[in-house]
Amino acid sequence: MSKKIITISREFGSGGRTIGRQVAEKLGVSFYDKELIEQVAAKSGLAEKFIEEQGEYSPAQNRFAYAFVGRSINGMSVDDYLWSVQRKIILEIAERESCVIVGRCADYILRDREDVLNVFVHADKQKRAERIVKLYGESSKAPEKRLMEKDKKRAINYKYYTEQEWGKAKNYHLSLDSGEFGIEKCVEIITELAK
Amino acid sequence: MSKKIITISREFGSGGRTIGRQVAEKLGVSFYDKELIEQVAAKSGLAEKFIEEQGEYSPAQNRFAYAFVGRSINGMSVDDYLWSVQRKIILEIAERESCVIVGRCADYILRDREDVLNVFVHADKQKRAERIVKLYGESSKAPEKRLMEKDKKRAINYKYYTEQEWGKAKNYHLSLDSGEFGIEKCVEIITELAK
Repeated sequence: MSKKIITISREFGSGGRTIGRQVAEKLGVSFYDKELIEQVAAKSGLAEKFIEEQGEYSPAQNRFAYAFVGRSINGMSVDDYLWSVQRKIILEIAERESCVIVGRCADYILRDREDVLNVFVHADKQKRAERIVKLYGESSKAPEKRLMEKDKKRAINYKYYTEQEWGKAKNYHLSLDSGEFGIEKCVEIITELAK
Repeated sequence: MSKKIITISREFGSGGRTIGRQVAEKLGVSFYDKELIEQVAAKSGLAEKFIEEQGEYSPAQNRFAYAFVGRSINGMSVDDYLWSVQRKIILEIAERESCVIVGRCADYILRDREDVLNVFVHADKQKRAERIVKLYGESSKAPEKRLMEKDKKRAINYKYYTEQEWGKAKNYHLSLDSGEFGIEKCVEIITELAK
């Protein structure tokens, strides 16, 4: 494909991860999400679960990180260390192979490359609420509240590390409403544009 | 087509108007831009040139409107009168026929309809600067400054009348970087998704 790497940023519950996985399958390239986290964990020595939970949240929101106040790894805060390890791994992957990367500010990290297609996937609140209940089940919190909290965290984290606005059309080559078009059509459009 | 109306919001110089016209041609539907302005003018009795210049700018920026301070039409300020006439015409058109409408907050005005596809077209500053110099010629102002001023006005106007953020991916079903994909490809994607 003419675009070597596709990054997918997504609202919680929009199906962005599913879309990313299917695009990777269609294009026959690697898919990085949990896999990426595992690599980060292996390289950084930080517990995998901790990274999974905290990797997309900025220090301001990261309660767990307060337990580490005053601690540092290689002279950095836990969060900044985690960010720098993730960044390094994403740059290495992009250099090495064609792939789809979901989340982790990969669009920003790879901004100096010409061969990256940056996609943002969103959907209206109702459709996302239905999706997360179907996928992750009910919880004591209303699904709308779960959506809001997760998206807010993603937005703050993105802003903290990139100084850009999360979800602003200009930051991406393509933004799609998956609730409007459906997962399949989104996969089709992204695949077509990456070729 | 399953979508009766396509609205196109666009950054200045992104080619959004050209894309809109070509989509309308491909789908065999009406195209509203200057045509819309003419209708507004005819209905409102306001001079066509005035509407063309001021129709997308909010009162706060509208120097010409200061000349009308204290004046009102049908009990409204000139700007609000203009907005209400444009709004009414856009609603009438949407009721009447399939079409492509560029600008004029049509996405917001038609938000209660299910048969509207809302598109945002953007491109990086350099590509837009090249395009406006090519299309409209040089001027005493640097093209980057012309872009910034025009987009700022559109954003303020959009916010004023819609209370929404201009250029935020969530407000549109589809956002496209025309500098990345080219006019032709954008036309193709929009046409495909409208069907």
